[in-house]
Amino acid sequence: MLTLADPIDHARRVHAGKVAVVDGDVRLDYATLHDRCLRLAAGLEALGVKKGDRVAILAANSHRLFEAFFGVPASGMVIVPLNTRLAEAELEAILRDCEARVLLTDREPGALRALVGRVVSIPDDYELLLVAGARPRAETVDESSPAALFYTGGTTGRPKGVVLTHRNFIANAFHKTVACSLTGDDVFLAAPAMFHVAGVAPLVSLVWLGATTVTVPAFEPHACLDLVERHDVTVIMPVPTMLAALVAAQRARPRDVSSLRMLGHAGSSIANAVIEAAREAFPFVELAQFYGATETCSIVTCLRNEETLIGTPLLGSCGRAVPGVSVKVVREDGTRAEHGEAGEIRVRGPNVSPGYWGDTSSTAAAFVDGWYCTGDVGVMQAGEYLFVVDRIKDMIVSGAENVYSIEVEDALQRHPAVVEAAVFGVPDPVWGEAVHAVVVLEPDAAAGEIETELREHCRKFIAGYKVPKQIDISVNPLPKSGPGKILKRALRAPFWRDADVSTRRI
Amino acid sequence: MLTLADPIDHARRVHAGKVAVVDGDVRLDYATLHDRCLRLAAGLEALGVKKGDRVAILAANSHRLFEAFFGVPASGMVIVPLNTRLAEAELEAILRDCEARVLLTDREPGALRALVGRVVSIPDDYELLLVAGARPRAETVDESSPAALFYTGGTTGRPKGVVLTHRNFIANAFHKTVACSLTGDDVFLAAPAMFHVAGVAPLVSLVWLGATTVTVPAFEPHACLDLVERHDVTVIMPVPTMLAALVAAQRARPRDVSSLRMLGHAGSSIANAVIEAAREAFPFVELAQFYGATETCSIVTCLRNEETLIGTPLLGSCGRAVPGVSVKVVREDGTRAEHGEAGEIRVRGPNVSPGYWGDTSSTAAAFVDGWYCTGDVGVMQAGEYLFVVDRIKDMIVSGAENVYSIEVEDALQRHPAVVEAAVFGVPDPVWGEAVHAVVVLEPDAAAGEIETELREHCRKFIAGYKVPKQIDISVNPLPKSGPGKILKRALRAPFWRDADVSTRRI
Repeated sequence: MLTLADPIDHARRVHAGKVAVVDGDVRLDYATLHDRCLRLAAGLEALGVKKGDRVAILAANSHRLFEAFFGVPASGMVIVPLNTRLAEAELEAILRDCEARVLLTDREPGALRALVGRVVSIPDDYELLLVAGARPRAETVDESSPAALFYTGGTTGRPKGVVLTHRNFIANAFHKTVACSLTGDDVFLAAPAMFHVAGVAPLVSLVWLGATTVTVPAFEPHACLDLVERHDVTVIMPVPTMLAALVAAQRARPRDVSSLRMLGHAGSSIANAVIEAAREAFPFVELAQFYGATETCSIVTCLRNEETLIGTPLLGSCGRAVPGVSVKVVREDGTRAEHGEAGEIRVRGPNVSPGYWGDTSSTAAAFVDGWYCTGDVGVMQAGEYLFVVDRIKDMIVSGAENVYSIEVEDALQRHPAVVEAAVFGVPDPVWGEAVHAVVVLEPDAAAGEIETELREHCRKFIAGYKVPKQIDISVNPLPKSGPGKILKRALRAPFWRDADVSTRRI
Repeated sequence: MLTLADPIDHARRVHAGKVAVVDGDVRLDYATLHDRCLRLAAGLEALGVKKGDRVAILAANSHRLFEAFFGVPASGMVIVPLNTRLAEAELEAILRDCEARVLLTDREPGALRALVGRVVSIPDDYELLLVAGARPRAETVDESSPAALFYTGGTTGRPKGVVLTHRNFIANAFHKTVACSLTGDDVFLAAPAMFHVAGVAPLVSLVWLGATTVTVPAFEPHACLDLVERHDVTVIMPVPTMLAALVAAQRARPRDVSSLRMLGHAGSSIANAVIEAAREAFPFVELAQFYGATETCSIVTCLRNEETLIGTPLLGSCGRAVPGVSVKVVREDGTRAEHGEAGEIRVRGPNVSPGYWGDTSSTAAAFVDGWYCTGDVGVMQAGEYLFVVDRIKDMIVSGAENVYSIEVEDALQRHPAVVEAAVFGVPDPVWGEAVHAVVVLEPDAAAGEIETELREHCRKFIAGYKVPKQIDISVNPLPKSGPGKILKRALRAPFWRDADVSTRRI
């Protein structure tokens, strides 16, 4: 069947002269992209890398990361994109886990050098590799073999490498093309980090269609808007924090964004206030929300034309299952929840990962009867609109009540002085857990009576038991992961260090 | 993974209230369609039909054929749609070959009754089955198991049942959706017979998207145009003879076809003159050409906006490989032909059939190293535009020259007196084969000197050696197969009865 060799081969035949990627001043057409992908694979083979071997890459978004994403798996090797925000110790643990033969990197590898057979520096060594290489061996690659490993989750314990097969990427490409109405005329701004699956998986669709991708080495909202203007970008899929930053930048200095047809956000929960602000700042652009996970090779659900749902009960939904993917919300006993009833979100389809790299127990826990158990709490409403209410581990159980942190964060975010808000549970001797918030305020906000004011503000939107018992003011921005998700884990950890964690539900 | 149970389940959840099918005065929404599919399967189970058993259907297009196409495979049984134009002896041979347990039919079964365990008449018995049935057993159906058998080809010898799996249909659905830009707003006129894969496979896309299908019991161009007007039809995919008839009907009595966005033709070669006439008759409708085969679960290539290519060398191409399908043209030794060089067309992808039902030798001959060998002669031109020049067995070898019948037919068709034309090779003692034509003339054409006139007319367009040595005038329409293909086999056979057929290349 098909592998990641097929879209690039299709594109070099059918879209040979079209621009595949724009990276600063570099423009590569599909014929050149294909040639460079093959040269990279041949160069790696010359270094002794074989079919099935892992090749790690630690680099900012660029046309070279694009090439590695296709060229390495197309020849049967496995690409391992590493999160550039991780600490060295975390990267070391990943390289040990995947036993990478080679590390491609645009930075000083430090202690990582000792963990791989060879470090290829980007751009110098990388370009030498391409000059030396010509055509790789014609390997027969099975669609069910791993194309990539994406490491997720814990900074503690063993890193979890999500295996994504060639078939996972091919399936997702069609699901995404249909769900987002992508065409060969689209110009896609690859603003989110391509070391996350949501940042790189769209490229499979775009290559097959012959569309153009504009890469961004590091997200900066003004630079992104400049690129929209310069390259007539049509689609951006930012994470919510990036969307909020783009909104602020467009307000501060409006650009001509008339080429833009879709701002599709995904990657974490979003406050409705951000959606409303995005409609104001980008009045002629369709907003769309997606839900997905690394284990589902990104897209699972889609809410198109989200801006038309402002003021309706559907706002805040991540939409409905896209064609090709099944979604259900289940009770603790595994039966389907009713509409309106919260439960775990589970996903099935040809896009779903076969499991975690060399980790049969985590795989067995997360993949049950062909369904991926997301660990997210969701509610399916009439019409099959899915609302993601929380991560199971972020849900706060206070007294007998479940409090979903996103609701409380949304209320806080509606206060004009609040820039960022994170809500989580902390140990409480009476209620089990208490609702706790950390907020970042606008620079000119009066910090004096703000805690009381914010609590009163929240009471206008949410029930009293959901209002934070304590609100901490942070002078620094909240800690975030690579894709811009607020790291609640880091905020919450100090409160739980000495608590009896066995009382947590998960 | 996914089966044909998934699109109908998706549609009943996500598109529950939308109209799935319009069949005369009957309108079924997706919730009802899903319910009827499940009842049909449960009713068949009550008759003793088990997972893997074949259920044949011999019927005109209707919502019941639609239901059977999804309901039977969704429960793991195998649907066998029978060509209603076949002679009883041919149908008997097919029922023997597939060992169908049940025959669903809207006609008197005659001798077929003896070949199946049970005949279910449509509509009476069929509706009783649905009343009796409720929910089928929840069978686990594998994506690689057969969903349908489509019988093709020879009236002589053993019938060939093309096995199409669940995965073949799911893959084709995404390929078709992307290639044709299908959306949930489309209203599809199911004019071609649904017993052909090209007539029924589009329904998988349409169901997943929540689009509406309007069924036509028997193709009649005026009735079809009336339905376009009444139901705001957006897409029709006629075979070329149907397209020609629609053009004539629209010229004779123009309808409001402003809802129509695409006329996509496929199924056999088309004379460029028909494309030009279609642009005249439907000036605001996109024309598109597709190439495919039963063995590829329909779509392989696609030429969009064909009307813009009139007057260019690309007219007559069936376009380029659609995303998800690979196409190549090979020499007799299996190596890739150069651009411009004729060879056999071969196809690879998840849409390609695993083979013929219980026929390992035909399967081994047609499916080589993961590629389906189409038996069609094609030429790939620069830009990867594919031209289908002939069936290998329809190619005429006259002297050392290959003559492709479509070229000659196109020249004949450009003469105003010619209604239909078929060109094939007949035995010739000097040249091996001679080019022979059979034409049907306009009712008022002067038959006197027409043969000489047609030959002179042809010389304006094609080389002398391609001009028919003999042109027969037929007073009857040319014989056609179910989907409207001219049966050249029947026209050619009398000439070859006493010839030494070993001189044929294939």
